[in-house]
Amino acid sequence: MEFSSKIIEKAVEAFAGLPGVGKKTALRYVLHLIKQDVQDIEQLSKLITQLKTDLRFCVKCHNISEQNECDICSNPTRNQSVICVVQDYRDVLAIENTGLYKGLYHVLGGLISPLEGITPSNLNIETLVNKLSSGQVQEIILALNATMEGETTSFYIFRKVAPYSVKLSTIARGIAVGDELEYADEITLGRSITNRIPFDSMLKK
Amino acid sequence: MEFSSKIIEKAVEAFAGLPGVGKKTALRYVLHLIKQDVQDIEQLSKLITQLKTDLRFCVKCHNISEQNECDICSNPTRNQSVICVVQDYRDVLAIENTGLYKGLYHVLGGLISPLEGITPSNLNIETLVNKLSSGQVQEIILALNATMEGETTSFYIFRKVAPYSVKLSTIARGIAVGDELEYADEITLGRSITNRIPFDSMLKK
Repeated sequence: MEFSSKIIEKAVEAFAGLPGVGKKTALRYVLHLIKQDVQDIEQLSKLITQLKTDLRFCVKCHNISEQNECDICSNPTRNQSVICVVQDYRDVLAIENTGLYKGLYHVLGGLISPLEGITPSNLNIETLVNKLSSGQVQEIILALNATMEGETTSFYIFRKVAPYSVKLSTIARGIAVGDELEYADEITLGRSITNRIPFDSMLKK
Repeated sequence: MEFSSKIIEKAVEAFAGLPGVGKKTALRYVLHLIKQDVQDIEQLSKLITQLKTDLRFCVKCHNISEQNECDICSNPTRNQSVICVVQDYRDVLAIENTGLYKGLYHVLGGLISPLEGITPSNLNIETLVNKLSSGQVQEIILALNATMEGETTSFYIFRKVAPYSVKLSTIARGIAVGDELEYADEITLGRSITNRIPFDSMLKK
């Protein structure tokens, strides 16, 4: 595509760098923005800069935060002895929105994926293992995707954590609430039978 | 969705204002940007501001331009007696990329669509009609979408232009190059038979 203006060309290139955005979509965004009010544009421009200047990664759990230590890590009412290991910030949001978890988090920043060139050293696994030496942590909950990458990462952490006397659990895999058995895949259904739970534990929730 | 940071919340809202972007996609963009280098972020932020400060609409054809008059309108080698009427900037790009058109453009800024509340007064139709009084324009080519809105707009312009002695044409509708007849819809196929062209005109291209 040849553009009549260098500014449009550069803006399209910049937007096309966003995940899942091609040149056509980027041009659509740019043309939309050109038609907006000056203050909306300035607001967007300012917010984008602020993402870099005002946000940082929590020094303890690597969650995104406005302070050096995030609101969850610095909250004394949270259970300091449980750490929930997640892939990224979106998973923290998702779990926080359930309102059922009161422990701390540890954000890996990705999953082990040899195909994408992501090795354990690219992830925040070292800092997770370091947390265990103090003996304060009693349980680690692995809350990773039920994909090949998620399972690989879980297994890697399992091996790293093995030398420490810490309970390691993983979130339950099974039939999603609202799903019909008929349409569940065999592996999920098989696991949900193997890992069946006492019926009265459901009544408590 | 509840975010842990006001900045993320506002940035997600701003990105969700882009066409076709929901809150989940907006969050994906924001998390991607947080991980980028400072200079890339500042570049994007600057470019967005520039879209508003350095770009304007050409006073003659309403195309997007860095000057008051766009490169096409101010180019003396373009044929000043033909005007191609298009919906927006993207159509100018598409036609320019064919390299086969050497006249001027007129960008309507949309199509008549009662459902979306777009009436002729929202479009640059008045300025198109004004161009005809000088007598310099000999032909108007309507290059609008082959949709209900496109046809309505074409017909509206046809009526507005009727009092002037100017040739009005529309781009050919027919079987796209590379398409198989078998899969063409009846209306397109019907029109392509009615508006058949001398075979030797194809050989010239």
